[in-house]
Amino acid sequence: MSQFKINKLCIVGVGSMGGSLARALRKNDAVTTIVGYGRNLKRLEVAKALGVVNEITTELSEAINNADVIVVATPLGAMQDIFMALKDIISSESIITDVGSAKQFVIDAAKNVFGEIPTNFVPAHPIAGTEKSGVESAQADLFEQRRVILTTQTNTEASAVKTIRTMWQTCGANVVDMQVEHHDEVLAATSHLPHMLAYSLVDTLARMDDQQEIFEYAAGGFRDFTRIASSDPQMWHDICVANREQLVKMLHAFNDDLQQLTRAVEKADSGYLKDTFTRAKQARDKFCG
Amino acid sequence: MSQFKINKLCIVGVGSMGGSLARALRKNDAVTTIVGYGRNLKRLEVAKALGVVNEITTELSEAINNADVIVVATPLGAMQDIFMALKDIISSESIITDVGSAKQFVIDAAKNVFGEIPTNFVPAHPIAGTEKSGVESAQADLFEQRRVILTTQTNTEASAVKTIRTMWQTCGANVVDMQVEHHDEVLAATSHLPHMLAYSLVDTLARMDDQQEIFEYAAGGFRDFTRIASSDPQMWHDICVANREQLVKMLHAFNDDLQQLTRAVEKADSGYLKDTFTRAKQARDKFCG
Repeated sequence: MSQFKINKLCIVGVGSMGGSLARALRKNDAVTTIVGYGRNLKRLEVAKALGVVNEITTELSEAINNADVIVVATPLGAMQDIFMALKDIISSESIITDVGSAKQFVIDAAKNVFGEIPTNFVPAHPIAGTEKSGVESAQADLFEQRRVILTTQTNTEASAVKTIRTMWQTCGANVVDMQVEHHDEVLAATSHLPHMLAYSLVDTLARMDDQQEIFEYAAGGFRDFTRIASSDPQMWHDICVANREQLVKMLHAFNDDLQQLTRAVEKADSGYLKDTFTRAKQARDKFCG
Repeated sequence: MSQFKINKLCIVGVGSMGGSLARALRKNDAVTTIVGYGRNLKRLEVAKALGVVNEITTELSEAINNADVIVVATPLGAMQDIFMALKDIISSESIITDVGSAKQFVIDAAKNVFGEIPTNFVPAHPIAGTEKSGVESAQADLFEQRRVILTTQTNTEASAVKTIRTMWQTCGANVVDMQVEHHDEVLAATSHLPHMLAYSLVDTLARMDDQQEIFEYAAGGFRDFTRIASSDPQMWHDICVANREQLVKMLHAFNDDLQQLTRAVEKADSGYLKDTFTRAKQARDKFCG
């Protein structure tokens, strides 16, 4: 088998995620030219100076010209506008993919613009990332041994799927396929809900009278627990709006459980408390141990 | 100033916390003899084999005989029984201290047994620890640059307070004084509430139909976020019961905030979401950055 190599890759939105993909492909010698596209030239210049991309432009038509793969790595809220801008200029030879955390939303945005999902569009979501944002935090090893979920549609071209699958495998990822709705449900539970809890907890504490002192006494576990509350607010706003149907279901389920736990603490219901903590510890140790 | 040295230290309950204190004092050459007391001889033998303590006994009177300092490091629920067992055999020459996370509860337990707080009892709480339990996880550096809160009473002997303060300082800790109620409030906010959220989240997910898959897809942040749900269920049961008044207040405050956030997600209230996430990120970066 000949080595996988993308001749020209275009990254639309060179932040932490797009930048990490660029670095990973470069490290694995799997790309010749990487063009970074964005609206902010200063930020693009940083990406180029850091060696994340080797060409930059604020002209989308120039960025995607002869691109083999176009990766849309903007916040979800910007994607429909990007699709709109691509609509009349994209070649059917280019493969489009994305890295969005809410797949029904991305697919709907594409349908809104193109009428139906383009056959050369492969919706994808790498389950990786840190609380840091910006191209400065891009890491070549971000996707190693992490999962990338593809939510391909019935009409997606097999050759396009194969290219995107191989692209992520080349970055060290384990690529899996999933139904769109199931993806959105799983991510609401394991990523979007925890982010809501971390943001909400830090905000609850930050509005207490003695916030300075409160945070000074935050014990060891607290730092890790709230790390994800340092994530980019705009990005998380977009995720909440984009996946709100599934997220709201999870928030209600969690709210119900927490209220039951609150009542158990009020009543000092030892059986309930020990059962809940034991079940949680066992699940955590089993799956994340 | 002569070097601080405890001739005989008795640890009642040689787990992660008591064991870490023993290791820290030994490392700093601040103790001659460390006696481990507990009801389970096998566990005490492990503590001795690991070099955490150098003497062990299941006889409390033997353990505390001639002890300069007695550290009660059991779960909170066992403390009143320990005080009861100590009542008729403790010498006024020995200083008693504890490491409990809920100070009003410990003080009430002492009052229930002794009628009033013994003047040689220094209630203390090191703000340190990990999700791991058992003497195997004891670490000599656990308290370095961490806070230890003393909630001394008006009748506490100054010389006893000085000894316990110096003992913790010798372990690298920063010792501070606090009112009992304020301690319980700050800990409810920064430690007890986050533990409830972590346990409750993991339990919510563990009861979903596709739990195996749910945990497989748990992204990077999730692992850190839920680490504290691996903490000892018995210990956390005791903390919930012991500090339930302050914890319930915090649970209600958090519940209210989370329900407001849930409504904002439902309505896709961009202003509310962005404001909340931005405020939380700023607080987190400012205090824990």
